[in-house]
Amino acid sequence: MSWNPEVIGEYRCFGGVQGYYRHASRAVGLPMQYSLYRPPGTPRGLLLCLAGLTCSEETFPIKAGAQRLASALGLALLSPDTSPRGTNIPGQADDWGFGVAAGFYLDATQAPWAPHWRMESHVMQELLPAVQAQLGGLPTSILGHSMGGHGALTLAQRHPGSFQSLSVIAPISALSQCPWGQKALPAYLGADEAQWAAHDASALMRAQSAPPFPAGILMDQGEADQFLSDQLKPELFEAACAAVGQPLTLRRHAGYGHGYYFVSTVIDDHLRHHAAALG
Amino acid sequence: MSWNPEVIGEYRCFGGVQGYYRHASRAVGLPMQYSLYRPPGTPRGLLLCLAGLTCSEETFPIKAGAQRLASALGLALLSPDTSPRGTNIPGQADDWGFGVAAGFYLDATQAPWAPHWRMESHVMQELLPAVQAQLGGLPTSILGHSMGGHGALTLAQRHPGSFQSLSVIAPISALSQCPWGQKALPAYLGADEAQWAAHDASALMRAQSAPPFPAGILMDQGEADQFLSDQLKPELFEAACAAVGQPLTLRRHAGYGHGYYFVSTVIDDHLRHHAAALG
Repeated sequence: MSWNPEVIGEYRCFGGVQGYYRHASRAVGLPMQYSLYRPPGTPRGLLLCLAGLTCSEETFPIKAGAQRLASALGLALLSPDTSPRGTNIPGQADDWGFGVAAGFYLDATQAPWAPHWRMESHVMQELLPAVQAQLGGLPTSILGHSMGGHGALTLAQRHPGSFQSLSVIAPISALSQCPWGQKALPAYLGADEAQWAAHDASALMRAQSAPPFPAGILMDQGEADQFLSDQLKPELFEAACAAVGQPLTLRRHAGYGHGYYFVSTVIDDHLRHHAAALG
Repeated sequence: MSWNPEVIGEYRCFGGVQGYYRHASRAVGLPMQYSLYRPPGTPRGLLLCLAGLTCSEETFPIKAGAQRLASALGLALLSPDTSPRGTNIPGQADDWGFGVAAGFYLDATQAPWAPHWRMESHVMQELLPAVQAQLGGLPTSILGHSMGGHGALTLAQRHPGSFQSLSVIAPISALSQCPWGQKALPAYLGADEAQWAAHDASALMRAQSAPPFPAGILMDQGEADQFLSDQLKPELFEAACAAVGQPLTLRRHAGYGHGYYFVSTVIDDHLRHHAAALG
C-alpha cells in the first residue's frame, strides 16, 4: 500500500501539530480525509477517535478539546471521516442518520452502498495501519462517541488484540435494537439478522467467551441525552458485559446532553484511561 | 430595557451551563444572538469574549476550549455575535472581511449600514449591562481574538472603568492601518479620519494620558499567522504602549497560526490573567 497523504492543513496546537489529510482510499474507492494530532516529542501511543452521525474528521479535533491533555500525556489522536463522500447515490443525504456521514464503521454488502460504504476496511485495514507505521508502530487504543461509540465497541471486539483499551461516550450500544440500526443494517447488510449481530456491540459482547478488556471499559452517558432511551440503550451493553464478566465503568451524568459540551467535559478522563493502558 | 432573552439551547458543560440566547436588540433594530457560559456556583467575574471575522456567538464556546478552566476559576463567559444578521444590504456578504460577521465592534454612521450596524452600542449599552445585572453585578474583563482583539482593545479604551483587565490573541492592532480597516472604516464611518482614529487601538493608546491598565495587558501572537504582517501589526500597538508607559506582555509563538488551534493553546493563560484581576 502506498501512503502519500495530501496535506490539507497543519496547525500548531499545544506544542504539537493538528493536521488534516487526504488520500486515495482503495478500501472505499474514493478520496478520504482524516485528521491526526501529533503531540510534541515521541508519542507513547495512538488513540483512534471515532465521531458520530453528521460528523466528519474535523469534528473531534475542533470540538472535543482533547489536544491539551493529549499533548501533556503524549498521545497521538487519529480521527477518520464518518462515511465516504462524493458519491451520487440517490437519497444518500436525505436522512442524517443514514448514508452520508452515517457509515456505522462497517462494510456494506448491499447495492448501492457496497462498492464505497466500506468504513471498517477503510479504518482497520488501511488508515490505522498506515498511521501506526508512520508513527513508528505505536500501541493503539480506541474511543468513540455516539455512532463512533458503536464503532469503538464493535471494532474493538471484531479485531481482538488491535487495541490496548476501549472507552466510549454516549455510544449506540446495540445497533440492531435501535431505529438508526434498524434502518441502516438491512440497507447496508441485507436481511440476514446474523449479519446484523456481527455489528451489534451488545450481541458481540454476549458472544465473548472471556472478557476482551479485563482491565475494564469506560463508558460515560448523559442522563439528559435526547437519544438515551430510544437509540443508545446503555443498559443493553451493561447487561451484556455483566453476562460475560467484562468489567465496565458506566458513569451516568445528571443533566448532561448528547453533544460535545458533554464530550469535552469527560474527555480528559478518557485520555487518562487510555494513557494508563498505553504505558 | 426589558430583558427576556429567548433560550435557543442550554447544555450542561463542566458542571455549568453553556447557553445560547436570542433577544430583540433595540441598538441594532433586529434580533441578536449571544452565548453565555455560567460556571457552577456563584461566578467571581464575567469575561466578555469577542470573536473575529466570519465568526458568530457560537465560535468561541465551540472552539476555544475555555469552559474547563472557566468552570474551575468561576468565570462566566459572554460572547456576542460579530454583526447584525438578517438585513438585505446589497453586497453585505460578498467579502468575508466586511459586512456580515464583520461589525468591528463600532457604530456605523453611514448608509446603508448605519441603522443596524451598531455593534458597540449593542455590546456596551445593551448586552453587557443586561448580563451583568442578570448575574448580580459581576466585575467584568474583556478578551478578544483577531477582529475581536481589535474590539477588546478599542472598547476597553473607549469605555474606561468598564473592564478590570484586558487581553487579546492575534488582534488587529491598528485598524486604520490595515486593509480590513481601510475598507470598513470609510464605509461604516465616512471619510473623516479622526473618526477612524477613535476606533484604532494603537491611536487610542497613543492618546492616553496615563496607562489605562497599569497591571498590564496580555497579548499572544503566532509567528506563522498568515495575517500578521499586513493586517494585525502587533508592533504598532506595542510601540503605542511603550509611548505611554502601558505595560504590555506580548508573547510571540513560533510556528503558530491565526485560528483556534492557537487560541485554544493559550486560552488558559488568558483566563488566569483575568481571574487574577477579578479577585
